[in-house]
Amino acid sequence: MCRWMAYTGSPVLVEDLLYVPANSLIVQSLHARLGVEPTNGDGFGFGWYDGDGTGLFRSTEPAWNDRNLRELSGHVRSPLVLAHVRASTGTPVQQTNCHPFRHGRWLWMHNGAITSFRAVKRDLALAVDPELFPDIEGSTDSELFFHLALTFGLEADPPTAVARAVGLIEEVGQRHGVPFPIQMTVATTDGETLWAFRYSSEGRSRSLFHNVDVSTLRAQYPDNPVLHRLADDARLVVSEPLGELQGAWREVPESTCVVVRPGSEELLPFGPSLLQPTS
Amino acid sequence: MCRWMAYTGSPVLVEDLLYVPANSLIVQSLHARLGVEPTNGDGFGFGWYDGDGTGLFRSTEPAWNDRNLRELSGHVRSPLVLAHVRASTGTPVQQTNCHPFRHGRWLWMHNGAITSFRAVKRDLALAVDPELFPDIEGSTDSELFFHLALTFGLEADPPTAVARAVGLIEEVGQRHGVPFPIQMTVATTDGETLWAFRYSSEGRSRSLFHNVDVSTLRAQYPDNPVLHRLADDARLVVSEPLGELQGAWREVPESTCVVVRPGSEELLPFGPSLLQPTS
Amino acid sequence: MCRWMAYTGSPVLVEDLLYVPANSLIVQSLHARLGVEPTNGDGFGFGWYDGDGTGLFRSTEPAWNDRNLRELSGHVRSPLVLAHVRASTGTPVQQTNCHPFRHGRWLWMHNGAITSFRAVKRDLALAVDPELFPDIEGSTDSELFFHLALTFGLEADPPTAVARAVGLIEEVGQRHGVPFPIQMTVATTDGETLWAFRYSSEGRSRSLFHNVDVSTLRAQYPDNPVLHRLADDARLVVSEPLGELQGAWREVPESTCVVVRPGSEELLPFGPSLLQPTS
Amino acid sequence: MCRWMAYTGSPVLVEDLLYVPANSLIVQSLHARLGVEPTNGDGFGFGWYDGDGTGLFRSTEPAWNDRNLRELSGHVRSPLVLAHVRASTGTPVQQTNCHPFRHGRWLWMHNGAITSFRAVKRDLALAVDPELFPDIEGSTDSELFFHLALTFGLEADPPTAVARAVGLIEEVGQRHGVPFPIQMTVATTDGETLWAFRYSSEGRSRSLFHNVDVSTLRAQYPDNPVLHRLADDARLVVSEPLGELQGAWREVPESTCVVVRPGSEELLPFGPSLLQPTS
Repeated sequence: MCRWMAYTGSPVLVEDLLYVPANSLIVQSLHARLGVEPTNGDGFGFGWYDGDGTGLFRSTEPAWNDRNLRELSGHVRSPLVLAHVRASTGTPVQQTNCHPFRHGRWLWMHNGAITSFRAVKRDLALAVDPELFPDIEGSTDSELFFHLALTFGLEADPPTAVARAVGLIEEVGQRHGVPFPIQMTVATTDGETLWAFRYSSEGRSRSLFHNVDVSTLRAQYPDNPVLHRLADDARLVVSEPLGELQGAWREVPESTCVVVRPGSEELLPFGPSLLQPTS
Repeated sequence: MCRWMAYTGSPVLVEDLLYVPANSLIVQSLHARLGVEPTNGDGFGFGWYDGDGTGLFRSTEPAWNDRNLRELSGHVRSPLVLAHVRASTGTPVQQTNCHPFRHGRWLWMHNGAITSFRAVKRDLALAVDPELFPDIEGSTDSELFFHLALTFGLEADPPTAVARAVGLIEEVGQRHGVPFPIQMTVATTDGETLWAFRYSSEGRSRSLFHNVDVSTLRAQYPDNPVLHRLADDARLVVSEPLGELQGAWREVPESTCVVVRPGSEELLPFGPSLLQPTS
Repeated sequence: MCRWMAYTGSPVLVEDLLYVPANSLIVQSLHARLGVEPTNGDGFGFGWYDGDGTGLFRSTEPAWNDRNLRELSGHVRSPLVLAHVRASTGTPVQQTNCHPFRHGRWLWMHNGAITSFRAVKRDLALAVDPELFPDIEGSTDSELFFHLALTFGLEADPPTAVARAVGLIEEVGQRHGVPFPIQMTVATTDGETLWAFRYSSEGRSRSLFHNVDVSTLRAQYPDNPVLHRLADDARLVVSEPLGELQGAWREVPESTCVVVRPGSEELLPFGPSLLQPTS
Repeated sequence: MCRWMAYTGSPVLVEDLLYVPANSLIVQSLHARLGVEPTNGDGFGFGWYDGDGTGLFRSTEPAWNDRNLRELSGHVRSPLVLAHVRASTGTPVQQTNCHPFRHGRWLWMHNGAITSFRAVKRDLALAVDPELFPDIEGSTDSELFFHLALTFGLEADPPTAVARAVGLIEEVGQRHGVPFPIQMTVATTDGETLWAFRYSSEGRSRSLFHNVDVSTLRAQYPDNPVLHRLADDARLVVSEPLGELQGAWREVPESTCVVVRPGSEELLPFGPSLLQPTS
C-alpha cells in the first residue's frame, strides 16, 4: 500500500504541499490513517513540471527524515506536482521501484497492486510494446502497468488506454484463476491535464479524494492559513484528506476517472475495456 | 524512541531472535506497541561475539525490508547478541548514529534521550577523556553517553561507571535548567556479562522486560515452538515482550541494573552517582 | 566492466581474500589495472557457503569504504567464496543489479556485457523458462544471462547450459545486426564445484587468471605471508592477479571453461552451442 | 582529497557547469587528473542561491551515476553555485560529512586536510564558539574548520576570519608536534561574494585555478560551444581546469585569497594570523 497526492493549479512551492498540511503526505509516510498499512517508509518520489521540462526526484529512504526532500521542496515551484510515499508489497526497495515513473513528458503513480503478480507478470510483460519493453527498469507491478497503458495509447487518450490496460490485467488474472486481479488508484499527467482513476476488481477500492473549490472553503474558514497559500484554481487529488476541515474533501466514487485541468474537474465513469469479446 | 533486545545464553542463530518471535524486533521496527512512537525506521544495528571477536552490522535503512539483515541473521550464530531499531529524535539518519556503538570488545545501545541535548552537548563532550574524544564518530546523545561511561571506567566496573555518567548528565542538565535531564534504558556488554539499566530523572522510564526461566515456560507451554529453539540458559532483556505468552516476561523495575550471565541474572538498585558532593 | 574473484579450498576468512592481497579486489574497486575502466565503484557483493546454506551480501556503495563489508569479511569463513565489484555499463546502481546472483544453492557472477542489450533484451527475456521469469529482480544483462543458463539446464550440466545460453545470445544478437553479441568472464557454482568461463564473440575476451599450485609457490617464496594463509588446496580464479608474484598466475586461455574442485582444476574448450542448426 | 568548483555570474543551469565541460566535476569524480587520488567517489554535494534562499543537495553516492544529481542539475538555475566531490581521508561516508557545509546563508567547502586530525580535534573543537558547537553534525576536519572560521567572524570579514582559523590550526598542530598542520583550498560565500583560498603549511598546496575573462576566450575560440553557454561575467574557481583550452585558466598562486564578485576578481595575499604573539 502507498499514499499519493497530485496537485494542479497556480504554481506552488512543493513544501507547501508536502509539509505544511496537518495530515500531509510526509505525515502519512509515518502514520497513514486510511490505508491498509500505516507506514509508507519504503521510498518516495515526486515529479514536477517547469520551464526545463519534467523533473523527477526519487529515493529509497523513508520520506519523513529525508533531508534532500525537505531541501528541494523548499526550492521547487510548479503548477503540477505528483508525489508518492511507498509501502512495498514485496518488490525490492530501490529507486527504480519508486513512483512516479516517467516516460517522456508523462508521469504515472499507483496505489494498490496487481494481484498474484508473480503468476501474471510474464504474460503482462509480453503485451508491452516491444519498443517500450527495454524501458522497464524496475520490478514493480506499477511500472509494468504504466507501460501497458503506454502500449494502449496513453499519450493519445488516457481514459481509453488505462481502461484497456485494466481490461488486459483483468483477463490475464482471470486466466490464471485470480479472483480480483487489480486494486488501484492511479494518477497520470502530461504536464497539463491530470487524470486520476479509482477502481478495483472487487469494487472495494483504495480511498481517493479531491478537494472542494478553494474559494468556497476560504469563505467558510477565513482564518485557515493553509487555504491562503492556495490559489482559487488549486485542485488536489489525494489518497486521504490532508487535514480535518469539514466539507473540504469529496470522495472520488468507485469506478471513476477524474479529469482535472486548472480550475476545473470532470468525473467520468471508468471500467475495464475488454480487448477480446468473449464469444 | 527506539526498541532493542539483548540475548545471552547458548549460541543461537540471530534469525531466531530477530525474525521468529511474534512481536520480534523486526515487527517492532514497523509497529512497536509500548513505545512513544510506533515506527522505528531510522536505521538499525546488531552486534555479536564469535571466535573472531566482536562483529557489528549497522545500516540506515528501515530494518523491516533490509535484505542484508535478513541474510546475515540466517548465518550468524552467537552466545551474545545486541540488536537495536532506531527512531531518530532529531539527529541525522547515518550509520555512525546507529546502535550498538562499539569500543574494543564493548558494545552499547540506548533507548531514550539526553533532554535538551543541544544545550548540554558541549559540556558533556568536554567531560569525555581526551584520549577517547576523537573516537566519537556520530552526533547522537547515545554515543556521547557511551563515551562518558567509558571515561568513568565502564570497562572496570559498569554499574559504577554508568551511575557516574548519569550523575554528570543530571548535574549538567540541572545547571542548564533542564527539569528531567535523562531518560534511558541501556544495554552494554564485554561479550561475557550483560548489564542492562532502566532509569529516568522523572521516574517514568521507558519500558524494559526480562524473560522468566525458559525451562519453567516450556513446562507451561509444551507446544510453543519458539521456546524449543531456546536453551535453558537463554536470557533476554527487551524493550517490550517478544510475544503474548502469559507469565513469560517480568518488567524490570524503575531504577534498576540487571546483571546477566549465562543462566543467571541479578537485579541491583541503580541511580545517578553525584561526582561533586553538594556542600 | 567489473572485476571478480572466486575461491575454493580449505575454509578461509573472507577478509584474507578481499583485503590482504596487494592487488586485492578491494584495491581493484578503486584502481583496477587490466580493465577497460579502472574504477569499479557501482556496488559490490559476495556470496559464500556454510552450514546454514548459501549466504549473500550485496550493496550499492563502493566497496573501498564500506564498513559492513570490512566487518563481515572478518567474521565469515567459507570453503567457497565468490566476490564481485561492479562498474555499471548503464543499468541502475541498485542491490538487485549487484553480483553474485543467486538461485537456490547456485551463485553466478559476470564481467563483460551482452552488446546492444536494449535491442536484444526482450527476445532473450522471452526465452527464459516462464517459471523462472518472475525471479528476475534487477535489470542487468548478467542476471538475464544467468536465468538463460538456468533455463538451459545449468543445475544439471553447467558447461552445456552456458554454451547453449551463449549460443542463443549469439543468435539473437546476429538477428539484430550486432557484430559481437557477447563479452564475458563468468563464474558459477553449486557450492561444491566452481565453473569459470572466458569467452567473447570477438575473440578478445576480458582477462582471466587462475593460480598456480600454492605449495609450489610457497617453496619458491618462503617469506610471502599471503601464501602462508592459504592451504595447499586453495584455488583462485580472478579477473586480474592479486599480486606481483612472478609465476603465481596463469592466464585462462580464450574460449575456455575451467572446472575447479578442491585441489584440482581442469580446462575444457568452450564455445557457443547453436540451438538451431543453420541449414 | 577532493575536487570542487565554484561559479558566480549570470544565472546558469547547474547542468552546464557539472556535466557539459570536457573535464567537468562529474568526470573528475571518476578520473581527476591533478589530484593526489584520481577517484572522488565518497559522496558529493552542491549548494546554490535563488529567490527561496540557499539550497543544498548532498549525497553519499558517487556523483558519476547519481540520477537525482543529474536530474536536479537540469532544473536548478543560480547565479552562484558551489559543487564538491569527495574522497574521504578516513572519516565516514555520510551526508553530514559531504560538502558544502551551510550556516545561515553561508556555504563552505574544502579540499585538503587538517593533518593528524585525531590528535588535534579536541583542542580545535574547544575553540569553537559554544553557541555554534552543537551545530557540528558530522565528523570531518572541514566542517570543524568552517565552524572555527565562523567563530572568528567569517560573516563579518572572511579573509581575516579564515586567517585566524588557519592561525589556530597551525598553532594547535605545532603544539602537538605536527610538521605541516594544514593543507587547503577553500571556497566560501554569503550568496553574493565568493572567497577562495589556497594555502598549506608546507607551501605546496592543492591545485587551484580561476578562469580568464570569457569574452577574451570567446574571441580566441569562436567555435567553442561551452564558452557560448557562459556570460561575460562568468567567474569560475576550480580545483582543476574544466577543459583543455589553452590560455583559459590561470593558476591561483600559493598563499592567496581570491575575492570574486560578478564580473570582477581580486587576488589578495593570504596567510595564517597568529592569535597569540610569540614572545
